This record gives sequence, structure tokens and C-alpha cells, in this order.
Amino acid sequence: MDFAFDERTEQLRGQLLEFMDSHVYPAEPVFQRQLAERTDPWAPPPIVDELKAQARERGLWNFFLPGEQGAGLTNLQYAPLAEITGRSPHLAPSVVNCAAPDTGNMEVLHMFGSEAQRKQWLQPLLDGQIRSAFAMTEPDVASSDARNIATRIRREGDEYVITGRKWYISGAMNPNCAIFIVMGKTDPEAAPHRQQSMILVPRDAPGLTVERGMHVFGYTDGDHGGHAEVVFDEVRVPAENLIAEEGSGFAIAQARLGPGRIHHCMRAIGMAERALELMCRRTLSRETFGRPIADAGVVQDWIAESRVRIEQQRLLVLKTAWLMDTVGNQGAHTEIQAIKISTPLAVEWILDKAIQAHGAGGVSQDFPLAELWAGVRTLRLADGPDEVHKRSLARRELKKYRAEAGR
Amino acid sequence: MDFAFDERTEQLRGQLLEFMDSHVYPAEPVFQRQLAERTDPWAPPPIVDELKAQARERGLWNFFLPGEQGAGLTNLQYAPLAEITGRSPHLAPSVVNCAAPDTGNMEVLHMFGSEAQRKQWLQPLLDGQIRSAFAMTEPDVASSDARNIATRIRREGDEYVITGRKWYISGAMNPNCAIFIVMGKTDPEAAPHRQQSMILVPRDAPGLTVERGMHVFGYTDGDHGGHAEVVFDEVRVPAENLIAEEGSGFAIAQARLGPGRIHHCMRAIGMAERALELMCRRTLSRETFGRPIADAGVVQDWIAESRVRIEQQRLLVLKTAWLMDTVGNQGAHTEIQAIKISTPLAVEWILDKAIQAHGAGGVSQDFPLAELWAGVRTLRLADGPDEVHKRSLARRELKKYRAEAGR
Amino acid sequence: MDFAFDERTEQLRGQLLEFMDSHVYPAEPVFQRQLAERTDPWAPPPIVDELKAQARERGLWNFFLPGEQGAGLTNLQYAPLAEITGRSPHLAPSVVNCAAPDTGNMEVLHMFGSEAQRKQWLQPLLDGQIRSAFAMTEPDVASSDARNIATRIRREGDEYVITGRKWYISGAMNPNCAIFIVMGKTDPEAAPHRQQSMILVPRDAPGLTVERGMHVFGYTDGDHGGHAEVVFDEVRVPAENLIAEEGSGFAIAQARLGPGRIHHCMRAIGMAERALELMCRRTLSRETFGRPIADAGVVQDWIAESRVRIEQQRLLVLKTAWLMDTVGNQGAHTEIQAIKISTPLAVEWILDKAIQAHGAGGVSQDFPLAELWAGVRTLRLADGPDEVHKRSLARRELKKYRAEAGR
Amino acid sequence: MDFAFDERTEQLRGQLLEFMDSHVYPAEPVFQRQLAERTDPWAPPPIVDELKAQARERGLWNFFLPGEQGAGLTNLQYAPLAEITGRSPHLAPSVVNCAAPDTGNMEVLHMFGSEAQRKQWLQPLLDGQIRSAFAMTEPDVASSDARNIATRIRREGDEYVITGRKWYISGAMNPNCAIFIVMGKTDPEAAPHRQQSMILVPRDAPGLTVERGMHVFGYTDGDHGGHAEVVFDEVRVPAENLIAEEGSGFAIAQARLGPGRIHHCMRAIGMAERALELMCRRTLSRETFGRPIADAGVVQDWIAESRVRIEQQRLLVLKTAWLMDTVGNQGAHTEIQAIKISTPLAVEWILDKAIQAHGAGGVSQDFPLAELWAGVRTLRLADGPDEVHKRSLARRELKKYRAEAGR
Repeated sequence: MDFAFDERTEQLRGQLLEFMDSHVYPAEPVFQRQLAERTDPWAPPPIVDELKAQARERGLWNFFLPGEQGAGLTNLQYAPLAEITGRSPHLAPSVVNCAAPDTGNMEVLHMFGSEAQRKQWLQPLLDGQIRSAFAMTEPDVASSDARNIATRIRREGDEYVITGRKWYISGAMNPNCAIFIVMGKTDPEAAPHRQQSMILVPRDAPGLTVERGMHVFGYTDGDHGGHAEVVFDEVRVPAENLIAEEGSGFAIAQARLGPGRIHHCMRAIGMAERALELMCRRTLSRETFGRPIADAGVVQDWIAESRVRIEQQRLLVLKTAWLMDTVGNQGAHTEIQAIKISTPLAVEWILDKAIQAHGAGGVSQDFPLAELWAGVRTLRLADGPDEVHKRSLARRELKKYRAEAGR
Repeated sequence: MDFAFDERTEQLRGQLLEFMDSHVYPAEPVFQRQLAERTDPWAPPPIVDELKAQARERGLWNFFLPGEQGAGLTNLQYAPLAEITGRSPHLAPSVVNCAAPDTGNMEVLHMFGSEAQRKQWLQPLLDGQIRSAFAMTEPDVASSDARNIATRIRREGDEYVITGRKWYISGAMNPNCAIFIVMGKTDPEAAPHRQQSMILVPRDAPGLTVERGMHVFGYTDGDHGGHAEVVFDEVRVPAENLIAEEGSGFAIAQARLGPGRIHHCMRAIGMAERALELMCRRTLSRETFGRPIADAGVVQDWIAESRVRIEQQRLLVLKTAWLMDTVGNQGAHTEIQAIKISTPLAVEWILDKAIQAHGAGGVSQDFPLAELWAGVRTLRLADGPDEVHKRSLARRELKKYRAEAGR
Repeated sequence: MDFAFDERTEQLRGQLLEFMDSHVYPAEPVFQRQLAERTDPWAPPPIVDELKAQARERGLWNFFLPGEQGAGLTNLQYAPLAEITGRSPHLAPSVVNCAAPDTGNMEVLHMFGSEAQRKQWLQPLLDGQIRSAFAMTEPDVASSDARNIATRIRREGDEYVITGRKWYISGAMNPNCAIFIVMGKTDPEAAPHRQQSMILVPRDAPGLTVERGMHVFGYTDGDHGGHAEVVFDEVRVPAENLIAEEGSGFAIAQARLGPGRIHHCMRAIGMAERALELMCRRTLSRETFGRPIADAGVVQDWIAESRVRIEQQRLLVLKTAWLMDTVGNQGAHTEIQAIKISTPLAVEWILDKAIQAHGAGGVSQDFPLAELWAGVRTLRLADGPDEVHKRSLARRELKKYRAEAGR
Repeated sequence: MDFAFDERTEQLRGQLLEFMDSHVYPAEPVFQRQLAERTDPWAPPPIVDELKAQARERGLWNFFLPGEQGAGLTNLQYAPLAEITGRSPHLAPSVVNCAAPDTGNMEVLHMFGSEAQRKQWLQPLLDGQIRSAFAMTEPDVASSDARNIATRIRREGDEYVITGRKWYISGAMNPNCAIFIVMGKTDPEAAPHRQQSMILVPRDAPGLTVERGMHVFGYTDGDHGGHAEVVFDEVRVPAENLIAEEGSGFAIAQARLGPGRIHHCMRAIGMAERALELMCRRTLSRETFGRPIADAGVVQDWIAESRVRIEQQRLLVLKTAWLMDTVGNQGAHTEIQAIKISTPLAVEWILDKAIQAHGAGGVSQDFPLAELWAGVRTLRLADGPDEVHKRSLARRELKKYRAEAGR
């Protein structure tokens, strides 16, 4: 057992931290200004492309993807880099081409895409030339039960015809978003986990309508393409757009989830570190009743608790990454659920305290805290609410004792 | 001891509940549509004025104000009516002319205003013809310590000159907002609680600039005039605009707070009731794994806890109202702090669970839950963060034993 | 609505508070000393009988029982008196003949007993000459589901024969305990809530064996007769010992529960008040790092939270008492569950903080806190764990919306 | 970074787990029976010595002590073994001679003792022939502030004279307890952290009186020698009994604490694992409303949360052990406080839920849960209450930003 990062990780961490200091943090106010000034409410500010070019030049690129096409890192090696990008979560992940949902989509194409699919869509994604979306959640059903999915993918000759309604399709309104991976049912009569398939739908396919941007606690998240409600009305795509084979949708979704949770959680930990830093700075710089707020016992309690929770969560996520590297997605099932359940809640708590320590400023647009909070809160119900994952985790725990109990 | 409402209250509750059913709830979608379609982002939708006329005609008006000029209700009689308006908090309070910050401002003018001030500003407010703002919080200091206030109110001849910066001035961008009550220091050398004064500043006074709307978790709250950042740059008003006398600002602020907390808390309880209703309806109407979500043990736990917490909070607020009626603001000091500390936290918890039960819809603009959450969360730091109030409450509790301990 | 106690209540409160100061608190160290010195580990110390005589002489007696045989108080009038006795919970309730389980047993006999039963058992209980026990919980099943009860009550000629095993039968080892009310099944084939009956079993009935005293977090609760595990091995009693009629056991148990919860909860609130007082005193009297512990922000947070939670709980319990007086047990069903769920948890929290504020002394025998904690913790699972009550409360809440949802 | 145990650890874990299954768990009922039957309430049951002989024979001995005299393990290697012993915490740690407070005392003698001290006291402790006690906490002051210590150690010629009162001196009433390490002040005028010294006091020294056993939530912990209140009344020992030098007491205490916290926390995690196992087994084996309790959503929530919290805590403690091995006590300061703050709280939560799942049995002597709870609850205030440690941790966090804030 060894808790030190390996050499490769330390080296990349050093380079990335340096890049954050020299390029990313100084660009944050520029990013905000460009956002405020743009005319298209969904267009990424030009500073993003400038920084991407510089990051790529430095080799700070595609960390998330194992193998030759990516940076060749393990999950355990990438995780601490994801944390660092989480300190500036609206800017840094895009800049190093490690932003969701592209990362998950690239993984899907990398693992399951045909050569043609990879050439047409994976390559420009890896080059940061286009963006993509992942269309799974539906407004009319509880999506946490995969059997509820209502979107239909119907074979007709050498085409598939897609009909359904999706929402919270992140990034879909970014003008650079060129391709959707859509989850739907090809065979409602099959066994529950063989009914679904995934298919590639170009954004400009006839019948695909982006109806509106969904909000997250008042935020449109327009800086990274928002969260669209999208209607698929008899959208036709060539049969070769199907990913892998009919009925493999559920399995692909599962494979996609593991690394995604690592990324989300590590970025959330980065947000927590930034929030803790802001909380310390703010409470040291303001006074009430003649003493800095940081002297107040309750504030010190928040700071101590924040530090402890961050340490706990980071270790749990890193161990999960290690398990995924060593025993695979399946062997890490319990831990993947454990981080999904615990990290957003812990980080939300820290953000809440940092907000409280900032007074009215905490809920305002002048600090990143409220917006980070909204994003992290939403993780508690993304990919199915925590409660569904706890239930599944508990059943696995109980299974150890079922035989002896005769249940 | 008697926990039944009196006859007058029951009668008004009946009328108000009927009006909510017949007029307010049906107007909610109209209100939303008009908000979406308006060109001025701060203008109230026309439906508000229509409903105001109908409410006033029915005598559902100015419940909050005791005495002849108002509805003549006690705090205890008004409180359950405030709860009912809280079920549609963006519409109902305005419609019955019981919306903050006008209510507090009218109370100030009613109790402390000169005859001329009352005639010029109180009457049109009571008639619902104008709106008003209350300018206390400042961006550059921790406002929870009144001694920190930096805005200066300087006497010059028969004028006062106001200089300072305020933010989160709710309602200030509503085009109907005609008058500000501004808190500032007339004498920084006086005893700590005699330094401040309040003064009336018409919104069109030269030197008063509304710089921008502050956000609350992404919301601008444009439907009721937002939360402005305002600069007072050598703003001159006649000396008779001062409310009461120099040095009385802190005392007026304290007098204003008591009833305001009752109103806020009762409305918050109304929000919690609505959230609980939405949670029950949603979880009964959707299925996962073959059963309605409402069958899940964890969801039932949330529902039970929500009901228990609502009952507790309502009783605590009602008792506080009763104390204010019987022994006054001072005698109810502990309880006023107790509701400030506990109600927003309890309601926030309920809203959080209702959001979770709605999945992605919960954080969206399609349900009122996320916006209600943001408003209630903000109450935890409005009028000073809860922590300051807890500290003060604890000191009062400890005081009972200090003599014997020789502290 | 009126939150003031009525005249009778105020008068009795005054008398009882005076009696606590003059007799009960000064007797606490005597009680402890006599406990330590006694030879029978289950015998009540002689001071109890002395105080009983004095209390009865003052008319501080049988407050709990409505009607002529008791003090003639409503639930709402008795509740604040129960709170006062809760401040010295091992002594005061017994002294005024208002101690569980006698109170519930007397209520059962009062409401459902035959004239002969009342004469033989109720009268000496009302006179404080004997004690009693209530035998419901069983070690081998989850007793929260009444259908699980395994004890059998079999009719044979003009006798009933009782066979089964019970545990946590409070007070059963007190040498003065003369009579048990036993719950068992007379007809396992009847409808679920008509299977059970209650029957009177004298403690010296052949076949009744008290096997051992059960512990509660290390405490034997020997001062009030402990918590016995009892075996009923073909115990025969005359048929007229049956209370009311066969099949009425469940209904009697329900009727018994309501007032009992009021009593338990009000006493628990009295414990919380005492704990808060001890916390204030202790933290004012000790120093760390040059200042009294009471100056620490975190400690002040505990004190404030404790005061707020006490106020909330007291109001909720008092309203429940009022509902029971005005609309009866059934109409107060939700509130009775609400106090069962929330009061022990709130008081446990306060006791935990008071313990923490006392350092090692808090968990010791030198302060009452740890023992109070153990008693209150146990209320979370007495009469069925809280979770069962929450589930039932939630279902009642959901019922309002089931019709429209078609569930 | 590598989360797998090394070979040595895996081998010892295998042997120890096998020994637990074959010897320790089967001995638990014997241990309980012997405890119930013994005449001396403080004497260890004979089964302990039998098992010690067998453990030592197998080389399962003195794991905790690094270097040649012990098992030569690092903290990281010992930690998972401590967890295993925590699954049977009243038996296993003693059996493998790794029980507190002997472990800490042996470390002190190992690191700071003179050759004579080591020969006389360390050797028999290492051989498991005697037990020892550590006398630091005092009843009359808040011991969390080391400056408060009132016990005096006065030099007189070639003797030291000790006067003071200590309590919660664990193990002191075990008849095998032969030696006390006593903390007191040799120089009240020195700098705050140079006032204290540690000294060896044989238990039979004249003037040393064990006054009584202190309780922990009703438990006397008589199975491992209880927690004594001890008076030192002019107790004289030879000057060579002083450990290290005058004024080094505080530094020795700090050195002793680090490993002790690892041990306590890992054993607590072992208790949590056992509690989770018991919770699963119990809820699978009992039914309410026609289904096993384990099917209840709320119970599954507890089980999932328990698993997640265990994983988090274990990783945090293991990392702390690793840090102590690699950068030393000082470098691991934050983490040592972090585990002190978070592990007892997490384990207490799990034990509470396991108790609740057991109904009345949970608080009884029939399951180990209530007693484990009491022990773990006490850890929240042992070595100073958590709040003191949080305050210190927060100050270290704030220190990073003080310079820039000018504080």
C-alpha cells in the first residue's frame, strides 16, 4: 500500500498546476466578460479556443483517454488531474479537452465504435474541433429505471428511425456540438437489459428539434452549451450509425458510467478545495464585532470539517480509480456507487458553508460558489438519484448473508 | 391554552383560500407566460394588477398592517394568512398588497413617519400604487454587525447628503418602485447603536444609480423587481426626509425586523406545504421497478419528516406572533431569533427532498421547487447569517447562570 | 389561539415547582445514596415513600388521570406538570404517583376494567400502595407488527392459560409490583387486529418466572424495578381477569398509547431543560485556553440549538395534548406519531451535546446525563421503532392524493 | 499509488483471521460466562490467559510495536490487524497483547524509557505478564488544555513526590495492573509545554488509593480493569522513575497519541464491520408486515451508508498510518486529527443504526452493540473533545492564508 502519486502523475500535476496558474486562473475574468458580451447565448467565448491551443501545445490534452489515442494514463493517473481542472470547472476541463459529456462519448466511440464511426466522429472530438451530446434522460418517465425509456429506435430498411423526447441534454446548444449519442429502445419485448441501443444522430438531422434550454437552479449553463430539451420526430439515420449491436445500449451505458463518475467526483473535489480556499480567504478578510470572522468557533468548525471531508472523499475516489484499473468496472461496482452517493453530498455541504461564510456575496454572481453548488447538487440526481444507487449497494451487501438466512 | 384559530382568522382564511383556488393558482401559468413575453426584464406582468384589483374589492388587502389604516389584524391573526400566500409566493403576496419589502417599509412609515411622509409615501403604498425598497446591506462589509455600515448620511443646511454603496436591494428595479428607505451613519462617533439613521430617498434622486441586478443562485428575481446594487453618490434630499430622528436607525431596524420575520417564516411554511404536496403527487404518479415511487421507504421517510417539521415550525412561528401581540417585540426576542434560525433550514430541507423526488424536473424551470429553494436558502443569511443570531440567543440563555458562575 | 396556560395549570405548576425545589431536588443525593447502600438491587429507596406521603398530602397526586378518581385534569393541563417531573425523572414521577407504566395501566383499568378489577387493582395503584407492569414486547419477534405477538392466552373452562415469553417488562422486579397486564393472542385465526387480548396476571401466579433483568446501555434501571425478561409457562388465572372482551387487546393498546406518548415526551422535554441548564453551568465554570468554555462559538451553537429545539418540541406536544382533549385519540393520530418520532431524537441530541460539554464527567455516574441519554435513546425504539411510525404517518399524508393519482 | 496490502500484511491478516474464527469468536460466550461468574468484579476471565498463550505460540503477538522487541511492523502493516481485533474488541486485542493502554505505555517505555525502566516494566508488559495504566485525565479541570493539569510532581532529594487526583484511568483495577505512568507538573513556572513530566508509579506505592470505578453509560468495563478514580497523596518514588527528563511530559504525550489514534480508529472500524454484519443478519432474519425487515427502504439506506462510511474511514486511517511511517508524527498532524474527529462519529452512527435495527435487543446485554456504542461515543471526548481538535485543525488550514490577509 502506497499513497504517493507515481512519477508520471507528479510530473503532469506539476505541468497542469503551472498552466492553471499561468493561463487558466488569469483567463477566468476574461471568460466571464466574454460570456457577458456575447450575442449568441450558447456560444463558447473565444478565450476557450485560445487556451485549448496552448494546452494542446504543452501536451495537456485528452488525459482522460487511455491508450495511444489519448494520453495513455490509467484512471488513477488521470484522477488527480481531473481534480485540478475542477478548481476552475467552467474553463479548465474544456481547455484540456477533458470536458463532459465529450469524454464519455469519446470513450464509447473508442471502445464500441466502428472504424468509420471513429474516423468520422472520434477524431474531431479528440482534436477538440467539435463537441457532442449524450441523450439519455427523458422528461416523461423516471429514467433511473432503464426499463422506463420511451424513445424508440426502429429499423426500417437500411435506416433507423428515432422518435422520442429527451431533456437535460448537456452541451446540445453549443454551436460546435455536432453529434448526439442517443439511447432508445430497439426491442421493447427483449429481456429488460437487452431492449436498448445507442445510435449516432448528427445534430442537423431532419426531425431533430432543440426546443429549449433547461435550467439548473436558475442557471442556463450557457457557457458550455446548456441543457437542451430535444424532440426526435421520426429522425432517420443510416443503419451503420448504430453503436455496436442492437440490445447493447444498457451495457454500453454501464461501461460509460464508471470513468465518468471518477471524473465528476474528482472535479467536484477540486471545487471543494477552491471553496475551502475562498472560505478561508473571505473569513480572514472581514470583521464582525471587532475580530476576523475566521476567529469564530463555528467557522473554524466548518473549515475543519471541510478539510476532513475532502481528504476522505479524495481517497475513496482514488481507490475506486485504482480498482477500475486493476479489477475493472465490475469489481469496482460497490466503490463506483459509493463515490456517486457520497462525493456530491460532501462537496455540496462544503459549498453551502462557503456560501454562508460569504454572506449575500455567496449566492451572487460575484463568486463562483452558488453556481458550483447548483452543479454539484444536480449530481445527486444525475444518472439516477442517489437513493436508487444506495438501494442497489445495500442489496449487494445483504447478498453476503442471504444464503444463511434462507432469503 | 387554545390551538384553534379565532373566528376572524377562520373567516379570512376561508375567503383567502377560496381566492387562491379561484384566482391565484389559475393565474400562475398566465404569470409565467407574461414574464417570458415581457420586454422590460423588471416589469411586473399585467396579471398582477388585475388580481390586485379583485383582491382589494374582496377586502383581501393589507392584512399585515394593524390599526385602522390596515386590516386591523394582530400578528397572530395575520400569520396564517401569510402562510397561505406563501403557497404561491411570487404572486399571492403582491396581489393582496402584503409583499416584502413594502410591508416592512409601510410599518416603518406607519410607526415612525411624519404626517407628511405618511401622506406622500405611505398612502400610495397602502393603495398598491407604488412599490418601495429598503437599502441596508452593503457589499464591502459584513452587514451582520451594524457598526460596520459605511454609508454616510451627512447634514448640510436643510438637506442630507447620502454617499455609499448598497446591494441586494430587493424590488429596486421594479419600474413602480418609487421610494427607498436608506440606512446610513449620521454620526460615526456616537455610541454604536446611535450612529445610524434612516432616510427616504426617491428613486429618481440625482446621484442615485442602480448599477446592476444581483443574482440568487442564477435567478434574477425579475418578477418582483430583482435585487439591485445601488450607488448613492452625494445624493441630496430635504432634511424632512429623515425618519424619526438622527440616531434612531438601529432601533427602527429592530422594530421592523420582528414582524418581517413572522411574515417570511409563515410564507416559507406555505412553500413547504406546497412542496410536500408536489412531492406526494409526483411520487404517486411515477413508477420505478414496477411500483410508484411513493412506495419507497426512503420517500415515505421524507414525507413523514416533512409533515413533522412543518407542524413544529408553524407552531413556533404562531407562538412568536402571539408573544409579539401580548408582550411585544422585546419579550419575544428569543422566539424571533428562534424562528429566524430554524424555519428557513427546515423548509430548505423539505424543498431539497421534494426536488430530489422530482429528478431532473426538480432543478428545472418547470416546477417552482428550485426557485423556492434558492429564496429560502437566502433567508439563512438575510438580516445577518443564522450563526450571528444563534450566538446572541445563546448569550441570553447563558445570562441566566452568569451571576452564580461569577462570569 | 392562546399560548398561555390556564389558571388551574399555572396554580399546579407553581405548587409543583415549589415542591421540586423544597423536596425533590434536595432528595436526589439521598436517593442516590440509598440506592448505593440497599441490599435488594430492585427495591425502591425509602426516601421515595416518604416523599410520596408529602406529595399526596399537598394534593400533588395522580395528575395524569382525568375524572373524579384522578386529579381531573385534561391532557393539556397535565402535560406541563409531566415536564416538570421530567427534570428529576428517576424520582419525581414516582413521588407524585405519575410514573410509567403504572399510569398507562391505571388508564386501562379506569377505561376498560370491570368493577371488580378496578376495586382490586386500580384502587391500590391510585393510592400508591402497589406498582404494576405491562407485558407486551417479546424477544423472539419484531413486536412493532402486532400480528407477530406469539404469547398465547387460551381459554380452558373458567380460566385462561397464558404461555409465552416477554422482555423489557419495566418495573417488574420492583418488590412492590403486584400485577401484570399481559398482551397475548386469544384467537390467532381472527382478523389481524382482533386476535389479541389483555389479561391481568398477579405477579405471584404459578408458572410466572422473572428470569433476569434486561440492560439498557449498561444500566439495569434498578431504581424503578428494572426491565424484566419473564416467562409465562401455562400460567392460569380466572376468566374474569380478562380486560374487556376477547379480541379487544389491540384497541386497548392503541387507547393506552396516546396519553403515554404525551407523558413520555413531556418528561423528555423536562430532561432536555435540565441538560441545557447543566450545559450552561458547566461551560461557564470551566476554562480552556484562558476563557470559559461557554465562550466557545461551537458551544454557543449547541446552546442556541438546544433552546430552539426545546421550544419546538414543547409546542408540538402541547398541541397534541390539546387535540386529544378536543378531538380525541383518533383525530390526534398524526400528531401523536409526530411527537413519538421527533421528541426523543431532539432530546437525545441535546443530551449528547450536554455530555460532550462535560467531558469525561458527561459519560459518568456523577452527572445524570448519560443515564438520561440511555433512557431517551430507548424511546426511539419503544412502542415500535420510529421508522414504523414514519411509514404510517407518510401513508396517511399520501392518502390525500391517492384518488387523483389512481393509486 | 497502490491500494493493495503488502505480502507481510496479507500473510498476517490471513493468520489472524483464521485465529479469530478458530479461537476468538468461539471464546466470546465463554468469556461472557466467566465474567458473569467471577467473584472479583475486576479480574480478567481465565480464558484470556489461555488464548494469549495460543496467540503467542502462533506469533500473533505485539503487532503494534515496531523494531526488534515487537513484531517489527510499520503502522501501515499493523493497522489492518488492529481492525481485525476490533471485531471482538473486548477479547482479541488483549489476546494478541495489543490492548490499550498497554500499547501506548510500552511505546513510551520503548522510546523514552531508561534501560532499567525497560527491563523492569517493558519486558513483563511485552511478555503479557503484567498490565499497566496511564494517568492523565483529571476530574477537576478541563484536561483538553494541558496547562490545566493540577497534579504536582515535586522533587525531594532523590525522590519525586506526587500529589493529585486522576480519573478514568483505564485498566487500573485489573489485579494484574502493576504500574502507572502518571502525568503531572514538575515546574508550573516553565513555558506552557515544558511544565509537565511523566513518571512511573507502581500500583502498590503508599499514598496511591484507587477510590472507585468510573462508569461509561452504565458500563463499568470490568472485563478489562475498569476506569479508576485514583488519588495520589504524597506518593514517593525514586527519582529514576521519571521518564526521560523533567519538562518532557507534553512531548511524550504527543508522541504517544499518534499511534494510539491509529489503533483506536482501526479497532473502531472493525466494530463497525461487525455491527454492519449484525445489522444485515438481524434484518434478514425477522419480518414485519409480511416481509423481512431488510427489504425496508430505510434499512437499506442505513446499510448502504454504513458500507460507504466504513470504506471512507478505513482509507483515511490507512493513509494516516502511511504518513506516520513516511513523514512522521508531525507530518501526519492534520490526518491524525482528521481521524480522531471523524472515525468515532462515523462508527457511532453505524452502531446507532444497527441498534435501531435490533429493536429492544439492540440496547440489551444480549448483543454487543450497546456496549460498543458506549465505548465509541466516549472516543469523541477522549484525548480532548473533538471540538478542540477541529479548532486546531482549522487554524492550521487558515495559516496558509494568514500572511496575505495580514492576520
